[in-house]
Amino acid sequence: MLTLKDPVVLAQALIRCPSVTPDENGVLTQVQTWAKSLGFSVERPVFTDKNTPDIENLYARVGKNGPHLAFAGHTDVVPVGDEKAWNFPPFEGTIKDDKLYGRGAVDMKGGIACFIAAVARYLEKNPLKGSLSLLITNDEEGPGINGTIKLLKWAADKGEKWDATIVGEPTNPNNLGDMIKIGRRGSLSGVITVTGHQGHVAYPKRAANPINLVIKLCEALKNPVLDKGSENFEPSNLEITTIDTGNTATNVIPQHSVIRFNVRYNDNWTAETLKQEIKKRLDSVKLETKGSLVPTFKIDWVISPGGVFLTKNDELVGCLSNAIKTVTGRTPELSTSGGTSDARFIKDYCPVVEFGLVGKTMHMVDECVAIDDLEKLTKIYENFLATFFNT
Amino acid sequence: MLTLKDPVVLAQALIRCPSVTPDENGVLTQVQTWAKSLGFSVERPVFTDKNTPDIENLYARVGKNGPHLAFAGHTDVVPVGDEKAWNFPPFEGTIKDDKLYGRGAVDMKGGIACFIAAVARYLEKNPLKGSLSLLITNDEEGPGINGTIKLLKWAADKGEKWDATIVGEPTNPNNLGDMIKIGRRGSLSGVITVTGHQGHVAYPKRAANPINLVIKLCEALKNPVLDKGSENFEPSNLEITTIDTGNTATNVIPQHSVIRFNVRYNDNWTAETLKQEIKKRLDSVKLETKGSLVPTFKIDWVISPGGVFLTKNDELVGCLSNAIKTVTGRTPELSTSGGTSDARFIKDYCPVVEFGLVGKTMHMVDECVAIDDLEKLTKIYENFLATFFNT
Repeated sequence: MLTLKDPVVLAQALIRCPSVTPDENGVLTQVQTWAKSLGFSVERPVFTDKNTPDIENLYARVGKNGPHLAFAGHTDVVPVGDEKAWNFPPFEGTIKDDKLYGRGAVDMKGGIACFIAAVARYLEKNPLKGSLSLLITNDEEGPGINGTIKLLKWAADKGEKWDATIVGEPTNPNNLGDMIKIGRRGSLSGVITVTGHQGHVAYPKRAANPINLVIKLCEALKNPVLDKGSENFEPSNLEITTIDTGNTATNVIPQHSVIRFNVRYNDNWTAETLKQEIKKRLDSVKLETKGSLVPTFKIDWVISPGGVFLTKNDELVGCLSNAIKTVTGRTPELSTSGGTSDARFIKDYCPVVEFGLVGKTMHMVDECVAIDDLEKLTKIYENFLATFFNT
Repeated sequence: MLTLKDPVVLAQALIRCPSVTPDENGVLTQVQTWAKSLGFSVERPVFTDKNTPDIENLYARVGKNGPHLAFAGHTDVVPVGDEKAWNFPPFEGTIKDDKLYGRGAVDMKGGIACFIAAVARYLEKNPLKGSLSLLITNDEEGPGINGTIKLLKWAADKGEKWDATIVGEPTNPNNLGDMIKIGRRGSLSGVITVTGHQGHVAYPKRAANPINLVIKLCEALKNPVLDKGSENFEPSNLEITTIDTGNTATNVIPQHSVIRFNVRYNDNWTAETLKQEIKKRLDSVKLETKGSLVPTFKIDWVISPGGVFLTKNDELVGCLSNAIKTVTGRTPELSTSGGTSDARFIKDYCPVVEFGLVGKTMHMVDECVAIDDLEKLTKIYENFLATFFNT
């Protein structure tokens, strides 16, 4: 069990499996082997859905009683991009100047390695008083349809219940200990199709330019701001991500134009109240028209599952903050900023917090992690386990 | 010379040449034959330019002295579109229920036929006191680069001078005699490229969304209105013809977005003063930004040659109006509305007015002209010739 206590060796082994979403390429089998030697019983459910690849997942548990702590994460990684731009091959796990290089080093094979090493160290010293699980998917960077959301339901349907979950995503902007994520904003997208009447630019009264309505609708979407934030969240924000018309003729008024937008919303809203607000804004738009023809619009919604959430479990957050303070000397910011993560699915089952490595190089060329950070994160997780299980 | 006095026979012969721009397919040779038998000397200059097809043109003149009247027009036609949708083959010149069917029936092979028939009738009864010319191009519906604009310069360089020109385009919205065009608005187009900073929608402060600037620029382009019209012109009008971004990712703030617009402007403006006004409006746009990054823009202009014009020659306009009133009983509206035409080039050489057939079916399936209209337009042109040459 010696090597299982060294997060660097474990992270290297995981990096060496080129598990770009959706390919498993041995990475879950590696985790399975380690989990088994630590006493976990392991299952490998594969989930399928039409129009998206089949995905391998891993659920492992050790212990039968509560309290039950889960560690959640993903073994898949984003593509390497321009491989020639890498100074160190992305799937070799090269160590240079106290850093470990490779795709997934921080996002988040390094995080998984630290948790496994922490469990190995903890179990060597202590009898397990509760239960520990691993909720690992190989589809977090891809469509996510056959990943954590299905793994949770599959496990819950078997009767699994958790008291708390840590997600090991890279949460620290600059230094280990900077930030715990205790919630996330929700994401709502919309597609507005505006239809006018095509015609010659020289005869605008015989046409209805959809772009005149597009401009007014965009103004209504953006103004006024949705809110000024809440106690734990930044202000909600709407971005128009694209406007497309595709008219190549300079003397023609087009027939259609399409607006797409995305809102990241805080706990002032639910997806439903936000849809109502946006619909109200769009419906209030009045267009002065020159002729009798007027453009019209319709809106289609793309609701990201999970929605906004905030974890209010002070014991869980406090326990993790103390572990971080003890190991790094830093008091982590409790943040709800940034993009969505699988924590939005977990929050429906148990309190969840996110804490992992430093995200600076994630998704970039020469993704890397400081060797020292791997050791420190392992210590933080181990310290947390000790407090969580009251040993 | 009998058949040359019948505009229906002439129009049929022209329709039977499938002269879709830039193909001549015998249509100018037909005009040449008729012009020669009426005593015209005929030249057929071909103009060339890179990146655009070579074009055949026709210049014909009879008489040596003034006054010198030119008739200008085009023998090319727009494509037939969905040929199966036609009830009468587009290049056969079928006559059914007192209508002549075919591509170019009104735009404007019918107009050329009427003018030739009018000249044939006039010369049969009268000795020519001045000069008559035909300025005919086979590229008015296409790029227009090797058409009337070059034909005029070519003829003027040879010493040709005209006292007045009639353009035989279809000017009447509903009934023959509705409308003479005595001027046209100018056309100015612009392309605005807006550049921001790409980024993740969850981190808008680290990006700069070009669409936020696009919306403000569009508002500045559209408001307030450019003018309220002038004595002889409708208000100038700006249409945004397309906005394109091409961003397919819902979670990404795009890097670029492009606006294209076209202005039809009246005699309150020149292309230069209008450019200055638009530039001033765009430069006045202020964008509130959340981060330190701001989107920027650049504008490229596409100026249509010719510009706005108004023909103030009361004698020419009055002479044509009287001819129309005499034949149809209608007093034509003197209009400056609608799209550009080759008259914008002719105005640099002599006073020009436009009067032809009824435009309702132009560019459409089953384009057609009333047989009665062909006869009446021939009589109008003949009446005009008589007054113009004081016979």
